[in-house]
Amino acid sequence: MKLSELAKKIGAELCLSGEDIDIKGISGIETAQEGEITFISNPKYLKKVEETHASAVIVGEGVCIQKEISLLVAKNPYLAFAKALEILKAKKPEYKKGIDKNAVVLSPVPESVSIGAFCYIDKNVKIGENVVFMPCVYVGEGAEIGEGTFIYPNVSIREGVKIGKNCIIHCGTVIGSDGYGYVTIDGRHTKIPQTGTVEIHDNVEIGANVTIDRATIEATVIGEGTKIDNLVQIAHNVKIGKHCLIVAQVGIAGSTKIGDFVTVAGQAGIAGHLNIGNRVVIGAQSGVIGNVPDGEVVSGFPARKHSLMMKVYAAMLELPEIIKKLKIKNEKWRKG
Amino acid sequence: MKLSELAKKIGAELCLSGEDIDIKGISGIETAQEGEITFISNPKYLKKVEETHASAVIVGEGVCIQKEISLLVAKNPYLAFAKALEILKAKKPEYKKGIDKNAVVLSPVPESVSIGAFCYIDKNVKIGENVVFMPCVYVGEGAEIGEGTFIYPNVSIREGVKIGKNCIIHCGTVIGSDGYGYVTIDGRHTKIPQTGTVEIHDNVEIGANVTIDRATIEATVIGEGTKIDNLVQIAHNVKIGKHCLIVAQVGIAGSTKIGDFVTVAGQAGIAGHLNIGNRVVIGAQSGVIGNVPDGEVVSGFPARKHSLMMKVYAAMLELPEIIKKLKIKNEKWRKG
Amino acid sequence: MKLSELAKKIGAELCLSGEDIDIKGISGIETAQEGEITFISNPKYLKKVEETHASAVIVGEGVCIQKEISLLVAKNPYLAFAKALEILKAKKPEYKKGIDKNAVVLSPVPESVSIGAFCYIDKNVKIGENVVFMPCVYVGEGAEIGEGTFIYPNVSIREGVKIGKNCIIHCGTVIGSDGYGYVTIDGRHTKIPQTGTVEIHDNVEIGANVTIDRATIEATVIGEGTKIDNLVQIAHNVKIGKHCLIVAQVGIAGSTKIGDFVTVAGQAGIAGHLNIGNRVVIGAQSGVIGNVPDGEVVSGFPARKHSLMMKVYAAMLELPEIIKKLKIKNEKWRKG
Repeated sequence: MKLSELAKKIGAELCLSGEDIDIKGISGIETAQEGEITFISNPKYLKKVEETHASAVIVGEGVCIQKEISLLVAKNPYLAFAKALEILKAKKPEYKKGIDKNAVVLSPVPESVSIGAFCYIDKNVKIGENVVFMPCVYVGEGAEIGEGTFIYPNVSIREGVKIGKNCIIHCGTVIGSDGYGYVTIDGRHTKIPQTGTVEIHDNVEIGANVTIDRATIEATVIGEGTKIDNLVQIAHNVKIGKHCLIVAQVGIAGSTKIGDFVTVAGQAGIAGHLNIGNRVVIGAQSGVIGNVPDGEVVSGFPARKHSLMMKVYAAMLELPEIIKKLKIKNEKWRKG
Repeated sequence: MKLSELAKKIGAELCLSGEDIDIKGISGIETAQEGEITFISNPKYLKKVEETHASAVIVGEGVCIQKEISLLVAKNPYLAFAKALEILKAKKPEYKKGIDKNAVVLSPVPESVSIGAFCYIDKNVKIGENVVFMPCVYVGEGAEIGEGTFIYPNVSIREGVKIGKNCIIHCGTVIGSDGYGYVTIDGRHTKIPQTGTVEIHDNVEIGANVTIDRATIEATVIGEGTKIDNLVQIAHNVKIGKHCLIVAQVGIAGSTKIGDFVTVAGQAGIAGHLNIGNRVVIGAQSGVIGNVPDGEVVSGFPARKHSLMMKVYAAMLELPEIIKKLKIKNEKWRKG
Repeated sequence: MKLSELAKKIGAELCLSGEDIDIKGISGIETAQEGEITFISNPKYLKKVEETHASAVIVGEGVCIQKEISLLVAKNPYLAFAKALEILKAKKPEYKKGIDKNAVVLSPVPESVSIGAFCYIDKNVKIGENVVFMPCVYVGEGAEIGEGTFIYPNVSIREGVKIGKNCIIHCGTVIGSDGYGYVTIDGRHTKIPQTGTVEIHDNVEIGANVTIDRATIEATVIGEGTKIDNLVQIAHNVKIGKHCLIVAQVGIAGSTKIGDFVTVAGQAGIAGHLNIGNRVVIGAQSGVIGNVPDGEVVSGFPARKHSLMMKVYAAMLELPEIIKKLKIKNEKWRKG
């Protein structure tokens, strides 16, 4: 593909330096070779452009480059880069349409669907067009998988779970495991049957080894376009809105409601039965123990406004000096 | 089933308002329809009873409801609700007794046992009556699985692991992986063979994608009736007592002993070689680095008495004011 | 095996008390029986030697024991113990060379390799001598597995991933899942294709239910001899050096570089795009948000020098007294 053609396809303006060459590939700025294209989104890496061996670079508007190198100038260079990757390099793992002879499938399957070896698809499962089950996937009775959804190996989808269209579910993830609910009497725990389900709406991506529990009654819900990273725990009856980002190792306890466009950064925890508003941002490793109104940015343990917590954590470093000034004997530590 | 019959079965007293109707189902208070029963355990939701479409509601003793609605009054409404769910709605995923023709089973199996497709059961495994292996379960040589235990898909049970009666193990969980033990010489790590095993006692439930490591020698032990949530890490040689609750994403480091009736809330971590007493409660996200005596409630990092830590975390928010009052230049932050 | 022979094999000097007996086994100091050998590495457990039933004990140099018991004196008693375990007790799970008839294998396989039931090995996979795939392993197209590597059940290795020699990968682990990368426009998240791979170098051990994401372009790298515990998350484009220890439930965000001989203790989190030097130690549950120079020990949230943070966390317990002394009304807490 010529540079000029690629520029058109990714919505970038081409500023040629030299010939309109054939693009051989796309690589990082440090490893790109002649004939390849590369990319910078952050102006602080501009210096690296001077040293790259790439023949062209995707940059944002208004960027000034000293070097003689072809530029593909994009309004959103990160998006242009994503598109270029899609065109030049992206490749889903291979699969064949039809049912592998080593799969057990007890439900009707459209011809456009691919079911890999060692998949087990139980009875009464509704499968949309062009769904892909990579090998070793389990789907329980009565589940529904919307068209175009792609399911990686070793995923477990329990009975009755509903998954929308064009979702991606990565290896090892479990959807619809029993919620963690017990009645405790005299210290003994009696299981509360978890009779609800999980509903995953369209265009949701779920990382590897994630766990999403089914509701006690009704449904645990993941809203449209929400993206969940690896090793996240979502408890029973949680409702997550649309277009949220839930980063790796986050845990969300039972019955909490999260609005739309919310970001929860890595390893944060959110207690149960809370309301988290729209467009909220929750910092990494935060512990949220109260409701959070729309638009707020919170962090720390327990989580409070990020602007306050930044000052608190900065001031915390002065504590040894504070107790010295106040002549406080610091002995609680020793007492355990 | 008539309301009166259900009331008897769940141990509740029936206060009829209108007819003794046939109960069609059980739902949440906001979604229940006419003919259905619902439930409130917390008096603060009493107002919702006024608006529900349900025909009957399970409540605690001494609750006063204005609305004309049939009441099922129970000493423990949560337990009554659990029983009603069990009767009206609970349903284990379907399975057939016998060995699926797509399973590989190298051990003797009682007739009452169910082994799903793509299960691999190695040699010398002892399997009790009525055990269920859902599809895609691996069980290593010499493992033991007690009667009535139910194992969900994609579980891995390594060689020699012992699991008691009436346990439930959810999808993706790994029991008996090697403990994390090395001898480090000149910075290089030599593996210490992990030659012990794991013992899970009766009535234990283990969530999805949990990891429980085998001991170096002897056994990692999970006591009777203990319930473990998703994505929990239990290291080698840990001993957990009876009837504990270990909530999601908790990590317990090697050789720590935990008593009976202990609660460890979500994302908490407990360091290795510690003794945690009976009836201890450890708050969410705590970091426990010392022994905890019987009955204590601890929280925070490093974990101390919860009553102290509540005050500490409240006071922490005043730190910016404290350094202002004391005229301390807060520059450590910048220095990194 | 005679005690004298064992002593020679584990590199220990034998101080006989009584006969040069045949060693029947190896056990913990509290459970060892007559005829068995046991071990102490920490002098604080010396008292337990007085009470053990074992016939011999592995100890460090210069240790003084009152009891009449045979001693195996080693420079590094922990290493001697590991060797004794290897000789007397260690046993890998059994496997047969060759391809199980219930496996699907689309690549050439050396005769020395073992592939268990329900494994799926896609096309163009390069497999070294003596590799073992336990049952239910998925390996995607074009992956490479070096000689002597041992892969436990239910592992997923995605297409193109490279794994070195003599690695061990425990159950449920996912290598090469898509990195978590999106371009967000008007709150909607467009997936950035994750077209890179993962490279695991020689002698790496990876625990159970770990997730290691493939790079956006180029490779996520785990250096030689590094040991990773259970439930660890390693994001796209992370580079980890040689001989590191990454303890359970650690999360490392995208593009961060970690040097050689680094220890990251349990549940710690490291933000993205950081440089962590050689021989760094990061405390349990730390939150690292800045670069860390060679040799530094850091802890806490946000992570700073451990020596400072020890004082800070000790002083934190005095906060209630501090605000009392300064007559600060502590009302921020209530305001949320």
